[in-house]
Amino acid sequence: MRVDGRASDQIREVSIETDFVKHPEGSVLISMGDTRVICTATVEDRVPPFLRGQGKGWIAAEYAMLPRATETRNIRESSKGKVSGRTMEIQRLIGRSLRSVIDLEKIGERTVWIDCDVIQADGGTRTASITGAFVALALAMDKVISKGKIKEWPIKDYLAAISVGVDSKKGELLDLCYVEDASAEVDMNVVMTGKHEFVELQGTGEEATFSRSQLNQILDLAELGIDALIGKQKEALGNIAERMK
Amino acid sequence: MRVDGRASDQIREVSIETDFVKHPEGSVLISMGDTRVICTATVEDRVPPFLRGQGKGWIAAEYAMLPRATETRNIRESSKGKVSGRTMEIQRLIGRSLRSVIDLEKIGERTVWIDCDVIQADGGTRTASITGAFVALALAMDKVISKGKIKEWPIKDYLAAISVGVDSKKGELLDLCYVEDASAEVDMNVVMTGKHEFVELQGTGEEATFSRSQLNQILDLAELGIDALIGKQKEALGNIAERMK
Amino acid sequence: MRVDGRASDQIREVSIETDFVKHPEGSVLISMGDTRVICTATVEDRVPPFLRGQGKGWIAAEYAMLPRATETRNIRESSKGKVSGRTMEIQRLIGRSLRSVIDLEKIGERTVWIDCDVIQADGGTRTASITGAFVALALAMDKVISKGKIKEWPIKDYLAAISVGVDSKKGELLDLCYVEDASAEVDMNVVMTGKHEFVELQGTGEEATFSRSQLNQILDLAELGIDALIGKQKEALGNIAERMK
Amino acid sequence: MRVDGRASDQIREVSIETDFVKHPEGSVLISMGDTRVICTATVEDRVPPFLRGQGKGWIAAEYAMLPRATETRNIRESSKGKVSGRTMEIQRLIGRSLRSVIDLEKIGERTVWIDCDVIQADGGTRTASITGAFVALALAMDKVISKGKIKEWPIKDYLAAISVGVDSKKGELLDLCYVEDASAEVDMNVVMTGKHEFVELQGTGEEATFSRSQLNQILDLAELGIDALIGKQKEALGNIAERMK
Amino acid sequence: MRVDGRASDQIREVSIETDFVKHPEGSVLISMGDTRVICTATVEDRVPPFLRGQGKGWIAAEYAMLPRATETRNIRESSKGKVSGRTMEIQRLIGRSLRSVIDLEKIGERTVWIDCDVIQADGGTRTASITGAFVALALAMDKVISKGKIKEWPIKDYLAAISVGVDSKKGELLDLCYVEDASAEVDMNVVMTGKHEFVELQGTGEEATFSRSQLNQILDLAELGIDALIGKQKEALGNIAERMK
Amino acid sequence: MRVDGRASDQIREVSIETDFVKHPEGSVLISMGDTRVICTATVEDRVPPFLRGQGKGWIAAEYAMLPRATETRNIRESSKGKVSGRTMEIQRLIGRSLRSVIDLEKIGERTVWIDCDVIQADGGTRTASITGAFVALALAMDKVISKGKIKEWPIKDYLAAISVGVDSKKGELLDLCYVEDASAEVDMNVVMTGKHEFVELQGTGEEATFSRSQLNQILDLAELGIDALIGKQKEALGNIAERMK
Repeated sequence: MRVDGRASDQIREVSIETDFVKHPEGSVLISMGDTRVICTATVEDRVPPFLRGQGKGWIAAEYAMLPRATETRNIRESSKGKVSGRTMEIQRLIGRSLRSVIDLEKIGERTVWIDCDVIQADGGTRTASITGAFVALALAMDKVISKGKIKEWPIKDYLAAISVGVDSKKGELLDLCYVEDASAEVDMNVVMTGKHEFVELQGTGEEATFSRSQLNQILDLAELGIDALIGKQKEALGNIAERMK
Repeated sequence: MRVDGRASDQIREVSIETDFVKHPEGSVLISMGDTRVICTATVEDRVPPFLRGQGKGWIAAEYAMLPRATETRNIRESSKGKVSGRTMEIQRLIGRSLRSVIDLEKIGERTVWIDCDVIQADGGTRTASITGAFVALALAMDKVISKGKIKEWPIKDYLAAISVGVDSKKGELLDLCYVEDASAEVDMNVVMTGKHEFVELQGTGEEATFSRSQLNQILDLAELGIDALIGKQKEALGNIAERMK
Repeated sequence: MRVDGRASDQIREVSIETDFVKHPEGSVLISMGDTRVICTATVEDRVPPFLRGQGKGWIAAEYAMLPRATETRNIRESSKGKVSGRTMEIQRLIGRSLRSVIDLEKIGERTVWIDCDVIQADGGTRTASITGAFVALALAMDKVISKGKIKEWPIKDYLAAISVGVDSKKGELLDLCYVEDASAEVDMNVVMTGKHEFVELQGTGEEATFSRSQLNQILDLAELGIDALIGKQKEALGNIAERMK
Repeated sequence: MRVDGRASDQIREVSIETDFVKHPEGSVLISMGDTRVICTATVEDRVPPFLRGQGKGWIAAEYAMLPRATETRNIRESSKGKVSGRTMEIQRLIGRSLRSVIDLEKIGERTVWIDCDVIQADGGTRTASITGAFVALALAMDKVISKGKIKEWPIKDYLAAISVGVDSKKGELLDLCYVEDASAEVDMNVVMTGKHEFVELQGTGEEATFSRSQLNQILDLAELGIDALIGKQKEALGNIAERMK
Repeated sequence: MRVDGRASDQIREVSIETDFVKHPEGSVLISMGDTRVICTATVEDRVPPFLRGQGKGWIAAEYAMLPRATETRNIRESSKGKVSGRTMEIQRLIGRSLRSVIDLEKIGERTVWIDCDVIQADGGTRTASITGAFVALALAMDKVISKGKIKEWPIKDYLAAISVGVDSKKGELLDLCYVEDASAEVDMNVVMTGKHEFVELQGTGEEATFSRSQLNQILDLAELGIDALIGKQKEALGNIAERMK
Repeated sequence: MRVDGRASDQIREVSIETDFVKHPEGSVLISMGDTRVICTATVEDRVPPFLRGQGKGWIAAEYAMLPRATETRNIRESSKGKVSGRTMEIQRLIGRSLRSVIDLEKIGERTVWIDCDVIQADGGTRTASITGAFVALALAMDKVISKGKIKEWPIKDYLAAISVGVDSKKGELLDLCYVEDASAEVDMNVVMTGKHEFVELQGTGEEATFSRSQLNQILDLAELGIDALIGKQKEALGNIAERMK
């Protein structure tokens, strides 16, 4: 029995509120249980220096937590004057993941900035960020197409992310909340497309290890979670979901 | 006629949603028109070095904007590696303002961290932060008293903040939205208690000046705005408002 | 009776020594009592990026203290690797104040850098900086006009700054020295033109408040102080004062 | 046919030179093809603050490249004043990996600092770092045991790391060199113990995706590579290999 | 003939104004020609961590220039967020030089902070800083002895510094001004005691070299300069000079 | 008798291994006793901003130590976020020294980056860096000439560096190892050309002084050391030594 009564293959309650903030081209507030993240997508008409003149675009991501998103208050990274290794890892992961399902040529020389700001944290903030950011990105692409700035729908497939953990007593568990995450021996984050292709697979046995058969059970659970999340993304996108074929 | 149809002495629609985030001792989402700020109050059982051993507490404030709270995206201060002068000015103002209505001896050797995070900006983010932060502070004090950590109610009076501007054509205007702020010749921020005592008065004629009679009209408007805001704070606080006598 | 024997409406002894340093276009050493500040004005033939191509200029200010300008030694901000919030507030204030009395179109695409370096501090360093910087600016403008770089005198009016405090026992006091400032309940800095127009008004009740009638007494004192300071500026400028009409 | 003539399941030539530097408790120069890394292990008699008083130790890792380890010169991170996200990711990976095979209680309140400095880079620097650091760690543990500082051999199993890539034309390839890495669609880094347990699995489809059956082929290759590397580690350790049972 | 009419073995006009600033234990304004430096000495009753508990003191030095001390304005190091290599070199040199003539045991566990702030620069700022700082240090030691904090006079000998350059046409020149420094092929800074012992010798042939016989001529000139400077130090110290035996 | 049995005028065993790293245009591993430094020379086809358009090149140097090059581990400067004063002094010294023997016009608008990375330290790392960097520079120049990028051999003379110390008991000692350096009263670093011309002379009496006759003995020893080092450089350069005439 899990701490919040879920079955081992059950994800937390998910909601995706679109257009949560008015200025960005796309924005959502995604909640997965008590984890809540504001994801926004900003379209900028230029690319980073290394891409100039190549006729293709870029997706860059940033991630942060409000200081009191967590149980105890964290010092702001702006006050510390530097971004932590954890933050860097997460924002690189979000950017890479979204780039894998978009046709960068189709968006032209533009950068889409993805900002994921966690306002309340209860485990799984990086996976919720990716799942929410995908919707914000789709909303932004829809708006840019409506304005005629780009011609063709550039997103190739759905994309969502989920965690799976291994608990020494309860075995494999889908979508860890914070308490579960803190005691898990193995923590796997899976980023996957609508066609069940892997985009990212990051598994860590912090002071532990895992076998290949455990890996297979983990991946089976992940596929279930991804399917459920993509269902929620489709609901949130409404008509725009049509564009995804 | 103002850009959003208000009278010159009319504030924007205000709402204060309490307990917006679950972890902090006190939290609100304050909206003043399209300006929306998450204000949280965190109680920490220690004080900064310069206050140790004096038997009194401290209130420290931090302020930030999400990158896309504004019309165009701002670079995160954590990415830049330093906090801007504007941010520092605002967070020092919030801290000083709240300290003026609290009896720091009554909270003992504790720091209350006030975090104001603007999720959507449309002018007046610093004044909305102060008005919202006051409610978050009161909620936190109520919780700490309930837990028996402090004995006596430490807040001496209500506190709210409002802007007044001078427009070369429309004269004095209460509670500027972003468009009005951008074209105002004079910008005054007034922080005031429930007894109409000034806590802070910051008036700037950016590339302009203002006379003493204009100052008087500005302050008359400010008093109206403060009264309206304190009315909203009382509603939001419900029973806790009783503690304020 | 004040600590240094002055009347409550009396400013400290003021002297303004022009051309204190040889390289800058304009420079002064201003002394207000024991507060001494070197103010220099440097004219640079370019503007910050946000102003390029608009045919107008800019005034930017920086402020610093020598480490031992104060009773106890301060760590240099260059050693700390960052500028404090207090410094930022002051340098933004100096820049805004001077911009309000200059016609930025008349100086063309140039930046005037104002540097205020406090070599000895005894209260009122920010107001002495503004009063001294105005003279340095006027000297620099005179030099640039003499060289034919700009055609018309760009300064619209005199500008000076003074502090007024409220002491719980002695009431309102003009031009606080350090000891008075440390015990004052209210601290008001007023930046004003020769025509008694406000440019900046910054009043703070640190852990205290003040009423509207106190505000009026404060402003009466400020006007006296400003008049005295502008008298000193005229003496220091000599013939150049003629240019101000 | 691979660029350097290897079979798809063949690793590059590996050599591990022990005691390459004289001061550290353990050190090696590991070469995998043209990738060369100096790995050192330093034993410090204290732990980071979060572990104090718990009777257990810690392993911390740092990673860097000489500026001209690569084809074109990189700016030093010390000159830039900050460590890149890539560096942070790698040093966190190295630390986590080594902690998974050591019994931290057995080393007592000590920190082992692992430093991996790449002097020549040709792909696979993070995996070579882990493989080499394992040997440096074992050498250091042997020395500390000889000195009687710790009683029992603390390392639980061998540990090595290898990359596997997927090339759109050549399929799955073991141990990518730089040229292969640059054109690979999928890049998987596998950290594994002597018993074929996973410690870390990090797979990325940069602008691409991979299926579950591809994953299985990748992992089959990885196991081959790990076995070969552990063979080399045993040779390098000589008598010390006995301690590993 | 030199640019300012001096003979090749003649130093510039020197003046040392003592007690230039009121707060520090010792302070001077030293002028060497148009180079003017405020030197202060602050006595702090503690030592840096590496010296604690050893019963001896330390001398630490910091050096800076006002932005417009020079012909064109320099960006403040506090704004840049880091201290330049040149500044570091100079402040390390000043500290080492003064430590060589003081008996650190006699000052007990105290740090003397030397601050050298150049308000006007015309070559030779580091040597003027050392020569002036010596006087500030002696003034501070006199004050600390008067207060009974230390028992015995701790300064062992006089200390001054001078530059000598080699010009391709004019040969060896004593005490270079800025214009001479800019065109000199060789630049030697000599720090010397009253007994003509070397404390520091730093000679640089920027894009040039110098022979041993040139070195000897340079050192002959340096001795002349040092004698003249120590004469000025004695005058400035007045009665305190007696303490130096 | 010296700690390692050498005569007072004897340098440590020297070896210079060329082409130690494959990517740079020139590279060596220089060993002087137990001090080992990797020196690389990188040719970049552009110059720093201050030199653009002048038809001449530049030599820039950077210096660093691996964390465990020393007896106890040093914190990386990249982790600290800033480069120490010592590092800056050394890299400026290396750059200036090499620039004195190269004809910067002959290399055209190119920068040669010299990187000196100490992998094992036992005293004299800065002098070993200069001696090794000279060889790396010569190797790089040879390669650039072979490729036809520059026409004429640009190096004017050999260049090497050596330390000489004064020990209170043993007198003047050539080429100090770490133990000797730690107890020396005077430390002199001499950078000299093949023609016995000085390029840099940096002598420091840390908490001590030295006389002119001691200086002469120091310089006599230095010349012996320089001759021995240049002999080693010629051997290492082989045929390329011919180019030096």
